[in-house]
Amino acid sequence: MNTLHQSFSVRFTYDVYFSDRLFESTNPTLLDFLQKHHSEGFRKKLLFILDEGVTTAHPELPDQIKTYFSRVSIVDLIPDLIVIPGGEGSKNDPLLVDQLVEAVDRYGIDRHSYVVAVGGGSVLDLVGYVAAISHRGIRHLRIPTTVLSQNDSGIGVKNGVNYRGKKNFLGSFAPPTAVFNDAHFLATLDDRDWRSGMSEAIKVALIKDQAFFVWLEDNAEKLAARDLEAMQYLVHRCAELHLNHIASGDPFEMGSSRPLDFGHWSAHKLEQLTDFEVRHGEAVAIGIALDSVYSQRMGWLSEADTNRILNLERILGFSLFHPALDGDGVLKGLNEFREHLGGRLTIMLLKAIGKGVEVHEMDPNRIREAIGILKENETQPV
Amino acid sequence: MNTLHQSFSVRFTYDVYFSDRLFESTNPTLLDFLQKHHSEGFRKKLLFILDEGVTTAHPELPDQIKTYFSRVSIVDLIPDLIVIPGGEGSKNDPLLVDQLVEAVDRYGIDRHSYVVAVGGGSVLDLVGYVAAISHRGIRHLRIPTTVLSQNDSGIGVKNGVNYRGKKNFLGSFAPPTAVFNDAHFLATLDDRDWRSGMSEAIKVALIKDQAFFVWLEDNAEKLAARDLEAMQYLVHRCAELHLNHIASGDPFEMGSSRPLDFGHWSAHKLEQLTDFEVRHGEAVAIGIALDSVYSQRMGWLSEADTNRILNLERILGFSLFHPALDGDGVLKGLNEFREHLGGRLTIMLLKAIGKGVEVHEMDPNRIREAIGILKENETQPV
Repeated sequence: MNTLHQSFSVRFTYDVYFSDRLFESTNPTLLDFLQKHHSEGFRKKLLFILDEGVTTAHPELPDQIKTYFSRVSIVDLIPDLIVIPGGEGSKNDPLLVDQLVEAVDRYGIDRHSYVVAVGGGSVLDLVGYVAAISHRGIRHLRIPTTVLSQNDSGIGVKNGVNYRGKKNFLGSFAPPTAVFNDAHFLATLDDRDWRSGMSEAIKVALIKDQAFFVWLEDNAEKLAARDLEAMQYLVHRCAELHLNHIASGDPFEMGSSRPLDFGHWSAHKLEQLTDFEVRHGEAVAIGIALDSVYSQRMGWLSEADTNRILNLERILGFSLFHPALDGDGVLKGLNEFREHLGGRLTIMLLKAIGKGVEVHEMDPNRIREAIGILKENETQPV
Repeated sequence: MNTLHQSFSVRFTYDVYFSDRLFESTNPTLLDFLQKHHSEGFRKKLLFILDEGVTTAHPELPDQIKTYFSRVSIVDLIPDLIVIPGGEGSKNDPLLVDQLVEAVDRYGIDRHSYVVAVGGGSVLDLVGYVAAISHRGIRHLRIPTTVLSQNDSGIGVKNGVNYRGKKNFLGSFAPPTAVFNDAHFLATLDDRDWRSGMSEAIKVALIKDQAFFVWLEDNAEKLAARDLEAMQYLVHRCAELHLNHIASGDPFEMGSSRPLDFGHWSAHKLEQLTDFEVRHGEAVAIGIALDSVYSQRMGWLSEADTNRILNLERILGFSLFHPALDGDGVLKGLNEFREHLGGRLTIMLLKAIGKGVEVHEMDPNRIREAIGILKENETQPV
């Protein structure tokens, strides 16, 4: 009997809104969104899940949310706002997945209702995973609260939790229904979280947009001094480049090419080697420095451009070396990345600022050389 | 700052192959597929998960599989063929999900390798779920072994497991990489499984294809007498209609319309009320009878057409009534279906053979009346 060929396309659309103090009674952003998506005959519920780190910095938030929705008649807020621990640790705890799935069941959250996550990248990853697997995918709203989640992970299409310490071993590709970036949350970040998300902006500028890199150089001091307006521009432009990349490429990563993973092969390993003491964005900054110096040693990137990259990172306050780079631990990360990609390595490196180049192998000796240079730089006065 | 709009399409393609005795050494189907999808530099692994019901009926199967792949050099068969219990019970056991995820981890099955499921719909649903959540989606091959899975569930895009007795509470939409329908497995099915999958063919014929319904009438005696050639045609045509429906409609069910759920609102409830003693296909046959009689009582479907439907089901050997339909238990299914759809009911009913009609409410008294008619018919000699 003849073979049947199946072929179809699924269109995914979502908006990323930018606002300030989303839950102030006069802020129309969320209300407008809910009205736009309201349909007669459907009674949509909202189940909020909040990052403990956010409610600690903003203890008034749960009451603000309740007050905001007490005036919204077209949806039902589940009054039990669930608060869960944030940070990478939350992705290691299978009981949290169970707790949230149980809440989806208990409160009868159906495929037309919303699970709303407010928090940093880890909480968004965890909640997004629960929303994706419940009822084969519940509508999911994201309110990212860190630089990293507002400009990178929180606006993308991935979710995931760790399994036996393996990062994002369980997860899926599931676009959110909408993302709301609230600048007010950025103001209360600690200095490390303020800084670390900027490495994804450097990354995307380096592989995609030379002009944005120049803007980062021109505004580096402001950004280092916690200028909120400059940060808002950084987040917006980085988010825009990130979204464009997803839409124009391979959104669900069916192939092997992963250009947005520039600087990430060593970063993932460094996080793991330091038991996540080094945060993701900090590790990415080091990974970018390492792959830039490597690109320069291979003769692809000019020394002047390499120095611009390292200088920008230094002005923003990043360390460009970590003792865990000593030894061959991080080199194992290259093999793990190769395995993760299915046996064939594809790594994004640099030809110039704003111009990436994909390679399929890296020379371990040159990597060691690049690590040595970063180590020497770090211990020398600039 | 201005809102960013994200929009992209993802294309999904897969083939459904029809063969007989896939693992005989001379059968090229699987080998051809693997060669077509082979790419230099990638070393793909195959992790097999087998339905215990299948290995009981075909004890030679594991050795056949090993022998088949001992001659295939472009992939690595994981020699540990995992056998799990089949049937609805397997979807109720969260430990099975853990066991399979653990195997994916232990054997290093990456996103370019394959998880291969051989079995009935429940095993395919469970394994498909594990494949979908591992590494954000591993390539997944399905080898359905029942009529129901070869013509309906196994060739579609859904997977799922139960959660606290709630059917498919956890799951996702994840198209397989390929499906291989092996007719040889149909020959060893028990009579109930042989019969029950045919109700999905009646369903799709009734809402989509009058000519196929006439074919079913013309071949009903053959099908009841277990004519394998007739069954192969039924499976192929039903699969074709099912695939066309998915491709032309709303593959990931983002809206509320669920035409392929014709006859299913009561069937799901009947399965639950009888603790799955009534199999899915048997329940669907009763659900089709119920919604056909209801459509007739509403004046949409002629009495002659209604009788043709009931007669076809009787000749194929289906019961058209079950004592669990007495009382209002099954009417609760209507409310649960409404909740499942997010508050607004959409039900497919019939205007004619081959022509469905969507409605947004059903009259409980008319449903009771239709149940009464089915009960009376069942206790009367035909």
